[in-house]
Amino acid sequence: MKRKLLFGLFGSAVALMVMASPTLAQDEDPGAAIEAVQATLDNVFVLIAAVLVIFMQVGFALVEAGQTRSKNVANIMMKNMMDFCAGVLAFFAVGYAIAYGGDGNAFFGLGNWFLMDTGAYEGTGLTPQVDFVFQVAFAATAATIVSGAMAERTKFASYFVYSIFITAIIYPVVVHWFWGGGWLFDRETPFIDFAGSTIVHGVGGWAALMGAWILGPRIGRYAADGKVKDLAGHSIAFTVVGAMILLVGWYGFNAGSELAADEFIGGIALTTTLAAAAGAVAAMVTSWITGGKADVGMAANGLLAGLVGITAGCFIVENGWALLIGAVAGVLVVFSVKFFDKVKIDDPVGAISVHGVCGAWGTIAVGLFGIDVGLFDGGGADQLVIQVIGVIAVLVWTCLTAGLVFMGIKYTIGLRVSPEEEIEGLDIGEHGIYGYDEHIVVAAIELDKADHGTPAAV
Amino acid sequence: MKRKLLFGLFGSAVALMVMASPTLAQDEDPGAAIEAVQATLDNVFVLIAAVLVIFMQVGFALVEAGQTRSKNVANIMMKNMMDFCAGVLAFFAVGYAIAYGGDGNAFFGLGNWFLMDTGAYEGTGLTPQVDFVFQVAFAATAATIVSGAMAERTKFASYFVYSIFITAIIYPVVVHWFWGGGWLFDRETPFIDFAGSTIVHGVGGWAALMGAWILGPRIGRYAADGKVKDLAGHSIAFTVVGAMILLVGWYGFNAGSELAADEFIGGIALTTTLAAAAGAVAAMVTSWITGGKADVGMAANGLLAGLVGITAGCFIVENGWALLIGAVAGVLVVFSVKFFDKVKIDDPVGAISVHGVCGAWGTIAVGLFGIDVGLFDGGGADQLVIQVIGVIAVLVWTCLTAGLVFMGIKYTIGLRVSPEEEIEGLDIGEHGIYGYDEHIVVAAIELDKADHGTPAAV
Amino acid sequence: MKRKLLFGLFGSAVALMVMASPTLAQDEDPGAAIEAVQATLDNVFVLIAAVLVIFMQVGFALVEAGQTRSKNVANIMMKNMMDFCAGVLAFFAVGYAIAYGGDGNAFFGLGNWFLMDTGAYEGTGLTPQVDFVFQVAFAATAATIVSGAMAERTKFASYFVYSIFITAIIYPVVVHWFWGGGWLFDRETPFIDFAGSTIVHGVGGWAALMGAWILGPRIGRYAADGKVKDLAGHSIAFTVVGAMILLVGWYGFNAGSELAADEFIGGIALTTTLAAAAGAVAAMVTSWITGGKADVGMAANGLLAGLVGITAGCFIVENGWALLIGAVAGVLVVFSVKFFDKVKIDDPVGAISVHGVCGAWGTIAVGLFGIDVGLFDGGGADQLVIQVIGVIAVLVWTCLTAGLVFMGIKYTIGLRVSPEEEIEGLDIGEHGIYGYDEHIVVAAIELDKADHGTPAAV
Repeated sequence: MKRKLLFGLFGSAVALMVMASPTLAQDEDPGAAIEAVQATLDNVFVLIAAVLVIFMQVGFALVEAGQTRSKNVANIMMKNMMDFCAGVLAFFAVGYAIAYGGDGNAFFGLGNWFLMDTGAYEGTGLTPQVDFVFQVAFAATAATIVSGAMAERTKFASYFVYSIFITAIIYPVVVHWFWGGGWLFDRETPFIDFAGSTIVHGVGGWAALMGAWILGPRIGRYAADGKVKDLAGHSIAFTVVGAMILLVGWYGFNAGSELAADEFIGGIALTTTLAAAAGAVAAMVTSWITGGKADVGMAANGLLAGLVGITAGCFIVENGWALLIGAVAGVLVVFSVKFFDKVKIDDPVGAISVHGVCGAWGTIAVGLFGIDVGLFDGGGADQLVIQVIGVIAVLVWTCLTAGLVFMGIKYTIGLRVSPEEEIEGLDIGEHGIYGYDEHIVVAAIELDKADHGTPAAV
Repeated sequence: MKRKLLFGLFGSAVALMVMASPTLAQDEDPGAAIEAVQATLDNVFVLIAAVLVIFMQVGFALVEAGQTRSKNVANIMMKNMMDFCAGVLAFFAVGYAIAYGGDGNAFFGLGNWFLMDTGAYEGTGLTPQVDFVFQVAFAATAATIVSGAMAERTKFASYFVYSIFITAIIYPVVVHWFWGGGWLFDRETPFIDFAGSTIVHGVGGWAALMGAWILGPRIGRYAADGKVKDLAGHSIAFTVVGAMILLVGWYGFNAGSELAADEFIGGIALTTTLAAAAGAVAAMVTSWITGGKADVGMAANGLLAGLVGITAGCFIVENGWALLIGAVAGVLVVFSVKFFDKVKIDDPVGAISVHGVCGAWGTIAVGLFGIDVGLFDGGGADQLVIQVIGVIAVLVWTCLTAGLVFMGIKYTIGLRVSPEEEIEGLDIGEHGIYGYDEHIVVAAIELDKADHGTPAAV
Repeated sequence: MKRKLLFGLFGSAVALMVMASPTLAQDEDPGAAIEAVQATLDNVFVLIAAVLVIFMQVGFALVEAGQTRSKNVANIMMKNMMDFCAGVLAFFAVGYAIAYGGDGNAFFGLGNWFLMDTGAYEGTGLTPQVDFVFQVAFAATAATIVSGAMAERTKFASYFVYSIFITAIIYPVVVHWFWGGGWLFDRETPFIDFAGSTIVHGVGGWAALMGAWILGPRIGRYAADGKVKDLAGHSIAFTVVGAMILLVGWYGFNAGSELAADEFIGGIALTTTLAAAAGAVAAMVTSWITGGKADVGMAANGLLAGLVGITAGCFIVENGWALLIGAVAGVLVVFSVKFFDKVKIDDPVGAISVHGVCGAWGTIAVGLFGIDVGLFDGGGADQLVIQVIGVIAVLVWTCLTAGLVFMGIKYTIGLRVSPEEEIEGLDIGEHGIYGYDEHIVVAAIELDKADHGTPAAV
């Protein structure tokens, strides 16, 4: 196909600026020509959606950087950039074949390694290339969720290794279960997770849980008397801008999951918008009532919680239910964050709550409110049951495999930096630089030491 | 419609990855099939445009944060995030019905509350959902303009209440006057405001005027001898990046206002580009001549002024006039900012000048340069007259209603924070956190106190 | 055409919200109607691609700001904003006519000044307006590359003058050679540079080389004993976020260069993704091996190097070669940055290496790996020879003309600020403000003085 373009390009001098799609002129059957235009439109839409999902990496990087300390900003940025870059390589080589390879079984795919077998895609509206770019952006999303929960204390090399495992194996297997036509899809009442509340965000959230748990809390986070000490992030501007960018990208995430340009994309965008707004307002109000002030970081987390919550059912719930799903996610995230601090699982950015807990809520909500299938919308309990089964299955799989990977890393190359490095910051320890002007970061480190003690005092 | 997708999704296992628009195969009439593809293309284009307009919220947040002080950054970010989130809820419940509801009159619409009556949209190219997402992004834009002008001294709860009023009532009524088919549209020579120089930016700008006026200036802004004291913003990088993001989003704002994908979108994008560039260069040169140096913040405001100016006429002016409209807006914004400081209306980000004054200029410019309708382009004075009437009507309506809302808030829950809180920063006072590392913000606050005095010295 | 819209808009009240493309109803021939929809789709896609390329200006601004010092952040932001704004005006008036004007010769075009002659575009799929907006975004990209290499010591007025020259003349002439149908295109074996590894990035990179060379290094950069002293940038977060935004925008840059919506855009997006990922990982690994730590700034540069490298051949190389091209670019950029420091050409952001060197590599790589034309993919040496000729021709042209412009400026209005101003920062010297809170910047300046000496000590 590329050759065709080459000839199209150089067949004549005049052609240089034309390069209109040649299919039209060649087709004599209007029906086929119309379908060709529609197929091109599908590809254009999903490619733009893929670009929006890739843009979400910027949002994640900013949200995570904003909620962590200035001495670790270069490290968190690097992790986010490498999640995507290593993820592309791993998903290209292995992950996509496990997720969508045709020769597999109900649990994992096989075939089309390194995207060699383009014949695998015949009969779909999307070209294999557009489909891959869209799918790899999702894989990178699942991976990048974890970086926030493990922030401020993880060795960079170890994180890099984990990042390859999740995009090459852990996430693709889950994808195969449903989107790849596996056991969660190929049954009388199939599981429903339209854009990945569980498949993407659940995998990321539960892997984050295992990472944060196995790592242990940051130095100074939990006082001897059990009190939670605030290790405040260094830029609310980054956090809010990141959350807003995630909202922008999420339109690609959800509407693009239609995998076609059709009359349903608007409805998906609408439920997504409503749930996001409801989540942010609900989290703000909840934090205001429980804490006395309108908490900005929590409102941003509420926005994301609403988005994660609506992702599974965005195409199949009425607007009113979308509002409810978002609002519940916004309340849930506030209490979930408190809960994980109570059990001393230290998640600096609330990733477990936003993506794991609210992803589970959104997935189960389809069994409650899904049009014709939900318990409260004309369906019986069948859908609800399989939704719960799906959530649990993904939780178990992810906890087991991610736990294995993290334990394997812990007992070989090591998962956590030394206490000295943690206190001086990972930017210097792992990357040899300060993320900002040295005088700013050093002052912050000194104040941190005064507040939270030195390694000896841990 | 959602049910159809549901069946499309689960009708067969193979269908999972296909999901191509089913309309094509069913249509036997090529004409209808072609129209269906075009309608889908319209929806795709306007949805992407809506996402770009939503992205403008990031631009506004950064512009406003950059031009205000570090002790108020969390507050300004929260206000921008909540403008959108509260705006979505208010516009969904009430605003959209007032703007576009069918059962209304020349002044406001009625019907389709909570978007319940999807039949209202029959016969249009866009699905109701895509139309709503596009329109709500505009409503949030009108609301968010005000947050900058009222920055650094407004109670968050009070701002939140105002924000609901503007998106639920003040803005929707104006929309109904023209886009909703009301009295500015349904006349022999209709008012022309293609994408909202007056309808969106005018409403925002004049509400900003009332807010800034009723609030009064920030502590330390105007010395006893009448001199204006600079309360410098804390990040030029944020300001410029925000302005550039607004430029990016504005392509959705203006070209998307075509509400269809057709051959005119390129012309709209071109006049938009030219006016933006001319505005930035003109404002830079003006600031250079009048102030001796090339003022970066003013150049950014000039970029925005050019964009606001071209918004009304972007589809109906020649390229040369587009350059002129932008350049005049760029000059105007510099002098307008000076003027409002002279009358001691303290607008930290220049929102009144950029959106109110340059919005009026752009709207009137259609009466001067609009192809076939403008005084200097083959038309008589009719268009100019209605343009001026429209500008004045929107100004009067907005000042009255926004004034009422702000006065009502002022004498109930109060509009302004205490002087002590203003000096210590709204981040701590309203939200209980510092937006950056504490040592940075506290040092800035101390220097601020030394420069601009304490409450006692006000 | 604009009049048609005007009538369409006001023909009837009902029409207000419809505004569907009227072409469909009027066409009775399905073939023509289908082609009209496809043409609209082409325009929509390329317009969105143009918006993505314009978004790249935000990426460049952030990358450059992050890698330079806080005392120069307002200046670098202003330069980036003005590159675009002045570039739009210059390219509109002159550049586009030289690049694509019909009445020219093999070396430069003539005609269509100020975009007056819209007839010039007949027969192409894109409207002249969409084409211009896309092309002007490329021109601004070529210009903005230079601002980073000349950062922290160039007079703003001088930079502004240069910026007009490159977008009005230097870049358009090169465009004409190939994309405008000139001597690099109109030959038996045409040069291949699909989206501008050499035409855009080469021009920018070599102009950056001349600028950095003629300016001389920053004060304190090279010690008397020849050692390179680190003048660390002030925000790694900006650098990485900027690089990720450039990745996002690059999908518009490369896929949009197809100038049509067709089945090839996915393949272009895929090779672009693979090369970017490979570049980032390769640069990270290289820096790790050679420097002992995973260098974040270098990884970001590697991402950009991979993108620049694949730009020429993104439509004509297999996925495996795309990975190789990106990986080689990632390694190359690390050593190239070291090389330019060795010869004491001070490029604060590595622009010469990223855009010049890796642009050349990517262009030559088409002669090695291009499907059917590359030395290692079924072709002979013909393509390789013309690729090398093209690279050298653009290098010679750009170095000569940019060198002339910079020398001309140097001996008239002056190119470089005074040593005093350089040490105190260009933000105060050129623009009269600090980019951040004064206490932060002043502290950084004092530390800088202590490290790198005062003018007297230079």
